Amino acid sequence: MILSVDLGARSYDVVIQRGCLSRAGELLNLNRKVLVVTDSGVPAQYAKTVAAQAKEAYTVTFPQGEAGKTVDTWMSLLDALVEHNFTRSDCVVAVGGGVVGDMSGFAAAAYLRGIDFYNIPTTLLSQIDSSVGGKVGVDYKGYKNLVGAFHQPKKVLVDPDVLHTLDLRQVRSGAAEAVKVALTGDKELFELFESGKAMAQIETVIYRALAVKAEVVRQDETEGGLRRVLNFGHTVGHAIETVSNFSLLHGECVALGMLPMVSDEVRVRLLSVLRALELPTQYKGDTEAILEAMSHDKKCAGGEITVVTCPQVGSFEFRKIPFQQLANELREVLK
Amino acid sequence: MILSVDLGARSYDVVIQRGCLSRAGELLNLNRKVLVVTDSGVPAQYAKTVAAQAKEAYTVTFPQGEAGKTVDTWMSLLDALVEHNFTRSDCVVAVGGGVVGDMSGFAAAAYLRGIDFYNIPTTLLSQIDSSVGGKVGVDYKGYKNLVGAFHQPKKVLVDPDVLHTLDLRQVRSGAAEAVKVALTGDKELFELFESGKAMAQIETVIYRALAVKAEVVRQDETEGGLRRVLNFGHTVGHAIETVSNFSLLHGECVALGMLPMVSDEVRVRLLSVLRALELPTQYKGDTEAILEAMSHDKKCAGGEITVVTCPQVGSFEFRKIPFQQLANELREVLK
Repeated sequence: MILSVDLGARSYDVVIQRGCLSRAGELLNLNRKVLVVTDSGVPAQYAKTVAAQAKEAYTVTFPQGEAGKTVDTWMSLLDALVEHNFTRSDCVVAVGGGVVGDMSGFAAAAYLRGIDFYNIPTTLLSQIDSSVGGKVGVDYKGYKNLVGAFHQPKKVLVDPDVLHTLDLRQVRSGAAEAVKVALTGDKELFELFESGKAMAQIETVIYRALAVKAEVVRQDETEGGLRRVLNFGHTVGHAIETVSNFSLLHGECVALGMLPMVSDEVRVRLLSVLRALELPTQYKGDTEAILEAMSHDKKCAGGEITVVTCPQVGSFEFRKIPFQQLANELREVLK
Repeated sequence: MILSVDLGARSYDVVIQRGCLSRAGELLNLNRKVLVVTDSGVPAQYAKTVAAQAKEAYTVTFPQGEAGKTVDTWMSLLDALVEHNFTRSDCVVAVGGGVVGDMSGFAAAAYLRGIDFYNIPTTLLSQIDSSVGGKVGVDYKGYKNLVGAFHQPKKVLVDPDVLHTLDLRQVRSGAAEAVKVALTGDKELFELFESGKAMAQIETVIYRALAVKAEVVRQDETEGGLRRVLNFGHTVGHAIETVSNFSLLHGECVALGMLPMVSDEVRVRLLSVLRALELPTQYKGDTEAILEAMSHDKKCAGGEITVVTCPQVGSFEFRKIPFQQLANELREVLK
């Protein structure tokens, strides 16, 4: 399956196909210098497979984890590009999860003011979410993605076969992002999850989730308005992620974060889907700490907070609500 | 005079007007947090004048000079933005020459993936050249502008009155960039220089030079092809700049760099204009070192180099010529 992301001169294709990693040399232009970027959590074989198909490849592997998503690591990628005399005609290929994609994408964005970037996401989360949309960057001074750019990839290769080496908990966490997109933008995809057949049709899930995201990005590339719909479940989710000190996975936090943002009717259906995916539906941690973390959110001002809600499956609303009301709902729903 | 730079959603105006610095609060949206960036070479009064017109201003002043155009200085600007909790709705204003504009523009480009940027260039060179086009960035590992972005300003204020505090040699160096643009793209502007009346009509010179540049940028925002015409005089010029260890000003090097790139007929007229502006027309330094520096140029490959030439006033050609031929012409013309 091929999904076209329509962004005028910056349009690109997402190829979703089992085994496409082995065809990278055919699907991408690797007939030049290629910086392959990966991390220690990704099976080394994947980066090797890509590098072997390039004319002149250099591979950088950095330690796994959000803690390494820093300006320093980003500069080490720039160093590699300088050292090997990369020109504007050369390219960067990310082989890994969201952290690898964000950081190598930002290196490609900034080097010589932008060289070609290809993304080969190897987690379900990054396949469904960060691989499309062009948001790249690094954390800074304790803030996520504080420094970065909008730099669209030239092409994205999504190979569902790589998910076989992924921890099951990671796969379920990624599925939570697909549920998120389905709830606000694709009723049929949500029904596929309800049927219990979604995970057996993972290519369809990836394609449909990306199609919704691509349409949102097409309408609002640089996050002026509509694109904020993608934050559904993330206002609370990010706060839980911070408070849990990353002991919960991103998708698990998003699963929890969606629950206070849906109507009662939708919540019944959502709970059923999350349970079937063995995603968390209750949070036993410190709810007050979550509220405290949320009060620093950039969407929180003057005692009110702007959130995305889902009144019925396949739709969404932007709502500005008093922070206290959200606090009450949160205590009620996550208990 | 107002020049509109037409770049679709990224369009903006350049206001060219005596005294407009004092009207920044009226011409720009400063009713928010404003980071005013300047350097020690710019009269402090200019940044103060701008800051006084802002709702909430913070001023960063870094040491003058290309040597400070580093990732470290750029990060110190990011630090200021973080420290004062700048949001996506706030902005950065550059008050200074090209180095200030390039670096603060890149801070605005990267912070939260891009916030508003205004440029108030205070040298003739930056008024005519770098203030329009959106090329921002910093030097890295000895390479000029190796790390950066294309980030268009929201508005540019060009106040010719600030040139009164500028060293005359700096003004002439800036004029060389206008001559460059005139030679390849505006016959009438070149004739204005030939008439000897150009410097007395500096607003017209700035407007016309920027108009040519704006049209080139409109057609080729991210330097895919045509925009390289702006490199006219710069292939040799940059090499002289490096070899002279920046003892010659940028515009002086461009003046020298144009001479080997024009037809004999044009050269006669160009020499006359450069002499009237008291710009250099001969280079007594090490010509071989210049050739050596040029051989590392990214436009030099396989013994050939791509240059922009001016066969007659108001026109240009891209030419790929053997490096040896260029070397011979250079020795001949600059002696």
